[in-house]
Amino acid sequence: MVPILIAAISGVLGLMVAGFMAAYVLKQDEGSERVREISEAIKEGAVAFLGREYRILVVFVVVVAIILGVVPNLGWLLAVAFIFGAFSSGLAGYIGMHIAVRANRRTAAAAQKSLNQGLRVSFRGGAVMGMCVVSIGILGLSILYLVFNSHPDFLLIIPGYGFGASSVAIFARVGGGIFTKAADTGADIVGKVEQGIPEDDPRNAAVIADFVGDNVGDIAGMGADLFESYVDSIIATMTLGMVAVFSTVLGKELVPDEPTAWFLPMLVAAGGILASIIGIFLVRVGEKTEMGALLNALRRGTFSAAIFTAILSFLAVYFLKADIGIFWAILVGLVAGVLIGESTNFFTSYTYKPTLNIAESSQTGGATLITTGFANGLMSTVPPIILVVIAILVAYRFADIYGVAIAGIGMLSTLGIQDATDAYGPVADNAGGIVEMSDLPPEVRQRTDALDSLGNTTAATGKGFAIGSAGLTALALLLSYVLAYTKAARIELADFLANSSLLDPLVIAGIFLGVMLPAVFCAMTLNAVGKTSFSIINEVRRQFREIKGLLEGEEGVKPDYSKTVTICTTAAIKQMLAPGLMTIVSPVIVGVLLGPLALAGFLVGAIASGFILAVTFSNAGGSWDNAKKWIETGAYGGKGSNAHKAAVIGDTVGDPMKDTSGPSLNIMIKLMSIIALVIAPVLARFPGIL
Amino acid sequence: MVPILIAAISGVLGLMVAGFMAAYVLKQDEGSERVREISEAIKEGAVAFLGREYRILVVFVVVVAIILGVVPNLGWLLAVAFIFGAFSSGLAGYIGMHIAVRANRRTAAAAQKSLNQGLRVSFRGGAVMGMCVVSIGILGLSILYLVFNSHPDFLLIIPGYGFGASSVAIFARVGGGIFTKAADTGADIVGKVEQGIPEDDPRNAAVIADFVGDNVGDIAGMGADLFESYVDSIIATMTLGMVAVFSTVLGKELVPDEPTAWFLPMLVAAGGILASIIGIFLVRVGEKTEMGALLNALRRGTFSAAIFTAILSFLAVYFLKADIGIFWAILVGLVAGVLIGESTNFFTSYTYKPTLNIAESSQTGGATLITTGFANGLMSTVPPIILVVIAILVAYRFADIYGVAIAGIGMLSTLGIQDATDAYGPVADNAGGIVEMSDLPPEVRQRTDALDSLGNTTAATGKGFAIGSAGLTALALLLSYVLAYTKAARIELADFLANSSLLDPLVIAGIFLGVMLPAVFCAMTLNAVGKTSFSIINEVRRQFREIKGLLEGEEGVKPDYSKTVTICTTAAIKQMLAPGLMTIVSPVIVGVLLGPLALAGFLVGAIASGFILAVTFSNAGGSWDNAKKWIETGAYGGKGSNAHKAAVIGDTVGDPMKDTSGPSLNIMIKLMSIIALVIAPVLARFPGIL
Repeated sequence: MVPILIAAISGVLGLMVAGFMAAYVLKQDEGSERVREISEAIKEGAVAFLGREYRILVVFVVVVAIILGVVPNLGWLLAVAFIFGAFSSGLAGYIGMHIAVRANRRTAAAAQKSLNQGLRVSFRGGAVMGMCVVSIGILGLSILYLVFNSHPDFLLIIPGYGFGASSVAIFARVGGGIFTKAADTGADIVGKVEQGIPEDDPRNAAVIADFVGDNVGDIAGMGADLFESYVDSIIATMTLGMVAVFSTVLGKELVPDEPTAWFLPMLVAAGGILASIIGIFLVRVGEKTEMGALLNALRRGTFSAAIFTAILSFLAVYFLKADIGIFWAILVGLVAGVLIGESTNFFTSYTYKPTLNIAESSQTGGATLITTGFANGLMSTVPPIILVVIAILVAYRFADIYGVAIAGIGMLSTLGIQDATDAYGPVADNAGGIVEMSDLPPEVRQRTDALDSLGNTTAATGKGFAIGSAGLTALALLLSYVLAYTKAARIELADFLANSSLLDPLVIAGIFLGVMLPAVFCAMTLNAVGKTSFSIINEVRRQFREIKGLLEGEEGVKPDYSKTVTICTTAAIKQMLAPGLMTIVSPVIVGVLLGPLALAGFLVGAIASGFILAVTFSNAGGSWDNAKKWIETGAYGGKGSNAHKAAVIGDTVGDPMKDTSGPSLNIMIKLMSIIALVIAPVLARFPGIL
Repeated sequence: MVPILIAAISGVLGLMVAGFMAAYVLKQDEGSERVREISEAIKEGAVAFLGREYRILVVFVVVVAIILGVVPNLGWLLAVAFIFGAFSSGLAGYIGMHIAVRANRRTAAAAQKSLNQGLRVSFRGGAVMGMCVVSIGILGLSILYLVFNSHPDFLLIIPGYGFGASSVAIFARVGGGIFTKAADTGADIVGKVEQGIPEDDPRNAAVIADFVGDNVGDIAGMGADLFESYVDSIIATMTLGMVAVFSTVLGKELVPDEPTAWFLPMLVAAGGILASIIGIFLVRVGEKTEMGALLNALRRGTFSAAIFTAILSFLAVYFLKADIGIFWAILVGLVAGVLIGESTNFFTSYTYKPTLNIAESSQTGGATLITTGFANGLMSTVPPIILVVIAILVAYRFADIYGVAIAGIGMLSTLGIQDATDAYGPVADNAGGIVEMSDLPPEVRQRTDALDSLGNTTAATGKGFAIGSAGLTALALLLSYVLAYTKAARIELADFLANSSLLDPLVIAGIFLGVMLPAVFCAMTLNAVGKTSFSIINEVRRQFREIKGLLEGEEGVKPDYSKTVTICTTAAIKQMLAPGLMTIVSPVIVGVLLGPLALAGFLVGAIASGFILAVTFSNAGGSWDNAKKWIETGAYGGKGSNAHKAAVIGDTVGDPMKDTSGPSLNIMIKLMSIIALVIAPVLARFPGIL
């Protein structure tokens, strides 16, 4: 029980740090009246969206909880865990967003003083979110453990928590992603492309919707996403505990008993929280204000956190008397995560050749730029795939499939600080928009732009982590599903494995269907953004046409911002349902129709294909974005040139890929895997109609 | 032996039909002097390219043959089969292209008379190619059978033929694909986009290269591609003969003895040739010249061929005293192929909603059009995947894995006529270009445009067949590989299957790597087109800049066409090497490094992911192309409007996707699978370093 108390204490500590950071942010200057006015409009829009989204989610959660409760072999305890997981995830997103919509105006005000002060406020705003995600996650799991650990079906109840978190995450990520990218695209196409007015121009009716989108998509959506990754990786490892007690592959015990196998992931995660806290406090710069120093400060924080995590993980393994092989598995996950982050940076930053090539191809127009960027995205799958494959094989060799699962935790353990460096970007982006609309001096905008650009670099690294860990976690969940199924069906695991040949046509059919599903999911989410942005575009055009003096910038003439926000909210919430529900229903259909074996093949196919598509979409989008930014620094004629116009097309194509479809895939593959795990006992009773 | 003689006779018959068609084409009017002059330039360029490509291929073939000869467990007989396969494939491409470069001018001349006459000449030109591919294929295999059938390693030698054909195909498809799309893109970007001159304008220095590309890419490249599909599907079924003699899954004999299991695929293919001949002669129209009648004529041909094939297949099964289950497997393949073709048509023709939606999205610019089209491509994977999955499960249920293989033959059996309806498109396209450059009356160009557009519809259907059958054939080859491996390693098949669990980390590692490879292949081929077109663009721009009076259209001033053709040839041949060699080397590396089990996972992953990417790329490209054509009919402002400019961007992005990367993936997945089959005996001796 001591390890669970340590975990809970680390969670409480994390919340205290979050509170400290929040207090720091809230006591900062709120800026001029104009700044507050704009920021208030953003806040209202964001709160309204989250309110409507959560109302839908409550209905969904209640319906699913009832289904879980009444289906034989599942039951009400699972439903309780499910509701608790959904609530925790919602809470993390709620807190993160409520701080973010207050941090943006304060960052804008702070950036008037210095770049350094701007970084401090926005980073601390992001840190609230990062610490909340990990602390609520570990506290939730600790509570669950304390309440249910003596229940005989403990290992079947705890996945409910992950299922709840994943369900909220998929809707939040997809809904927020549709909102943010539809508003962004709509604002850009009518503003920048058609009317030739600058970004974030107050005459553009979609501009407030765009800022709202940053908060509901990149903050609340991402929060739910990372919360899910975090708890799912811990749950997957716990449910594989049986394997660690005696590994038939290695022929030895990895841990002395099953509770130890449950404590270990909690302790490693707790270590990651402590390491993240240390890392966050190491992010400080002197009065130097150049970019290099800022980036170094952030990297010092994340790298130190990684090293501390490694040390604390070793201590956890040592004190729990676990096999040293487990430590190697954690370490390989941690190292692979860092390297995947670096490779993402290589393929998307304009300091390296791939993105510079894309910028160069803008000279021959939008079409060649699209092709080059898309090819770059496809090519960028090589390092992450090879690193994940190495991590799987090494972790397996040292600690069986338990090792594969705990390698995923290793990769995610520094999430507290990773998320902080990730979440401050949208805060800075928002602050920049507020600055632009408030007629503050241009050097203030330059500072917020610098912060935003730095945020893009850290966000790229963060995305690498998120995808890599999603792959490992989903695989671990898949293995847990097989274990849970064999237990419930009273089959020996060895027998199931002997009958699960890759070459079985049912397995192959499952793999084919699984490889297809992420492609369909991407098509649906891309179309959702397209449809939503189409209605935004028409609304912004209508306002330019019908509101006299708006385009000319007459004194006192303002667009109707709230109309656009409302259109976006309604459309995004409507459009998020289909891809979300498809994700939830598909594994159930495959399992019931083609049976548990085909479902395993389905998951492997979906995980591999989802991984590839997520990396391709994120990195293609990221590199188009940065190719545009590189041209905006003056390359190939700079802003307004034909090269720039081509780059804007690339950026617009990439936006929904990198911020809606791509990151949602991370959630999708884990959600489908955890559903398989949850319904395993049902499949054991009804093993496939066909 | 009688069945093999029947097969050989059907091959000879096919060649006679091809000869008859060729004689018909060659005796047509060659057109005006200007027509002949242009057509001669195209012919020279195409012949020069093919010559250089084949010289490189000879070196490659010799090197690989020596390697096959000296490696223990492979040997010189395999090398002979390999050389024979490579030669046969090259021959089919050579004949097809030599007729095509003669048919284009004659089609141009015939279109001066009537649409109907234009169709007749171009369709018969295409039919030469179609009949040559299937006839040479079945004759080659018959010869191989007669020479080697008494050799104890017959089943290990015959895959060499497929390996040879596949190797030539990958280089021909990739090299030709790079050539055609780089020239097309280069010509379009400088001509249509930058200078605003019409398509196929004689002032454009890349215009002849563009026509050459149609011949080397869409004719010779496609010929090699389909030849490979055809022979690989037969070989895969033959090597699975052992399973048909006694199916452990069904617990019964499917055929009385092994030779029958070899005869059956040959006979089904022979039936397909006879059915195709009947179908080709059914493609006749009266003097009616509307499009509907022409399309109906083509469809009457293909549908009748499918029905005759079904009847002849039934007779083959009946007379060889094989199990009726095999007939159901053939039939399900045939039906699935037809339905996949129809679904491709639905997603890419502008008579249906998906393409109309893409055209609509052009109103908000190039970016939204790209997103909508790409989403459409992703969504279009659903029907083919579900149909292939159904075909796999049904065929397996009725005739074990032998059924899966022979379903692939069923799908491909009408290739003779499918290829004819496919290959006439580029001939008509070329003829249209020649008409444009020869100042013939506009109604002639309208007729060739109508033929071209009809060709796009049939090509879409053909692509569906090609992809569907590639998936089934590659799977059959994978199963053959496993069979060959277990035989060579003297392991019981059942033992191998029991140890090939989908959940084995080596299998999962293989699947991840396999899913990645097609993405990398696409990235390489897209980049290759990008690089090559970049040099074309610079050359065309240079000529416009440096040749005085060229852009103004002064009398007697001509661009240097041959310079552009040479640049394109050199670049395409250089760029085809890397993706081709990567495809050949990858399965060897995975097999040697990670072992035979990981290789099986690798192939399953690559087949599934290659299938998805091929469908996505082909259909996204096809729908962009047709969305542009729809706008050109006058929708959304027609030619020259902003909507049209957006559609041109989409078409340019789609070109290398649908004509270089997409179709090459079909070859890639079969080539990797057949390599695994060829090296199986080697892997049995050195089973994995790691």
